[in-house]
Amino acid sequence: MEKYKRNERIGAIIKVLGDNPSKVITYNYFSELFSAAKSSISEDILVVKKTIETLKMGRIETIAGAAGGVRYIPIMDDMERKDFINSLCNKLRDKNRIISGGYIYYTDIIYSPELVDKIGKIIAGKYIFKEIDYVVTMETKGIPIALMTARYLNRPLIIVRRDSKVTDGAIVSINYMSGTSSKISTMSLSKRSISNGSKVIIVDDFMKGGGTALGIIDLLKEFDTKVEGITVLIASKTPEDKLVKDYDPLMVLQHLDAQKEIVDIVPYEHKDYV
Amino acid sequence: MEKYKRNERIGAIIKVLGDNPSKVITYNYFSELFSAAKSSISEDILVVKKTIETLKMGRIETIAGAAGGVRYIPIMDDMERKDFINSLCNKLRDKNRIISGGYIYYTDIIYSPELVDKIGKIIAGKYIFKEIDYVVTMETKGIPIALMTARYLNRPLIIVRRDSKVTDGAIVSINYMSGTSSKISTMSLSKRSISNGSKVIIVDDFMKGGGTALGIIDLLKEFDTKVEGITVLIASKTPEDKLVKDYDPLMVLQHLDAQKEIVDIVPYEHKDYV
Repeated sequence: MEKYKRNERIGAIIKVLGDNPSKVITYNYFSELFSAAKSSISEDILVVKKTIETLKMGRIETIAGAAGGVRYIPIMDDMERKDFINSLCNKLRDKNRIISGGYIYYTDIIYSPELVDKIGKIIAGKYIFKEIDYVVTMETKGIPIALMTARYLNRPLIIVRRDSKVTDGAIVSINYMSGTSSKISTMSLSKRSISNGSKVIIVDDFMKGGGTALGIIDLLKEFDTKVEGITVLIASKTPEDKLVKDYDPLMVLQHLDAQKEIVDIVPYEHKDYV
Repeated sequence: MEKYKRNERIGAIIKVLGDNPSKVITYNYFSELFSAAKSSISEDILVVKKTIETLKMGRIETIAGAAGGVRYIPIMDDMERKDFINSLCNKLRDKNRIISGGYIYYTDIIYSPELVDKIGKIIAGKYIFKEIDYVVTMETKGIPIALMTARYLNRPLIIVRRDSKVTDGAIVSINYMSGTSSKISTMSLSKRSISNGSKVIIVDDFMKGGGTALGIIDLLKEFDTKVEGITVLIASKTPEDKLVKDYDPLMVLQHLDAQKEIVDIVPYEHKDYV
């Protein structure tokens, strides 16, 4: 007799797959975990797949062969994604979020694990079937979003620093110019942190002029890196002529008027989600 | 007839609970999701609890009453925790990690979503039954660990900044002295980011002299905050006389000799895990 009931095996398989998004888990692993025959595990996986996909919780992919197994592909359902981004826009339209200087306060949103988990899942969904080696961001506020994206893609995070740190070892640094002010700043990356010739995506919280993104692209050139995409949580509509062209926001800040207390922010209509 | 089989309901319940650690999900939510009777859901939850707890994947807690429901409590099994921290120590003992200046390179570990997820789960396990309102860290390298801890505790993250940003609105800032150098630096926190009188934990990647932790404690005093604990990934053994007393590392860097290429790092023996 088998040690665990089918019920229990299915529950536990879903837990392991959900805890390890985008990672292939072998049938052997489950077979040993439950002391169950591989044929039983195969049947369990069919139920797991049906459950996850019927309830629109993502996809389950089985990989045949010696290196084979099963993986959970975290794709948020279209309707859920739209509802979620709409709800973020509604939160952000609150006039109390307007900060003197013409900024909008959204730190509470990107520091909320529950919200940033969903944001990361949405961004990851855009790249989940592409070959990506790293998720790159610039410190500081982009980090939570980028980490959650990296978690769902099962890829390492790379954080570009504003200053160089002794604890990073040898670094590569460049000077770059902000897109909106003409201030020259420095950004740096540890030489050890990224393999030459990698494919990356850039993830950040906000894009105004695109200077930071362009700086990251220039810095990554020193590592022969190919940038496969740039996604930001919010892009401001102005300036329309940004320093980078191919970027993709979840929301667009169309207009912010501190005096009239107007925050006009809308979902960006994606066309290329899976 | 019910729309979903018990098998499927159990799998989906585990997915939802696992995706929302420490958050109470109502029976109503599941009842509506599956168009199933509450009595069926109650029976499902019993199987879920048995599965998760038998396989040592954490605990399942049911909360009775009107505001009741069920929540997943992410506690890593003792043996798994010890094995994992030992494996981290083994990784860190690699002499190629020694950086000139007498530092150790560990950025790859704390930027790996898979590893930092487990680190966050271990740290959260220490505070999971305490009332914590926020998880506080200092930018930059502590952020991934702190975010994952916050995710498992289902509490917001707070990031103390080294410089003040116009996009943060009104800020409170203090000067503090590093424990090892005598350099005076500034740290700041947005006034909006934290409610007065909150209970927090401080999470960071490394502690040497304790100056940063002491600075955060002093800054938090301006918000009448109670610090319930300080946990760091690595603490160096020297200086033994740190500026904060009650802290709790996962690993202790006992000795680092760049010339002899020795990295002596060991697990810290915790006594107060749940």
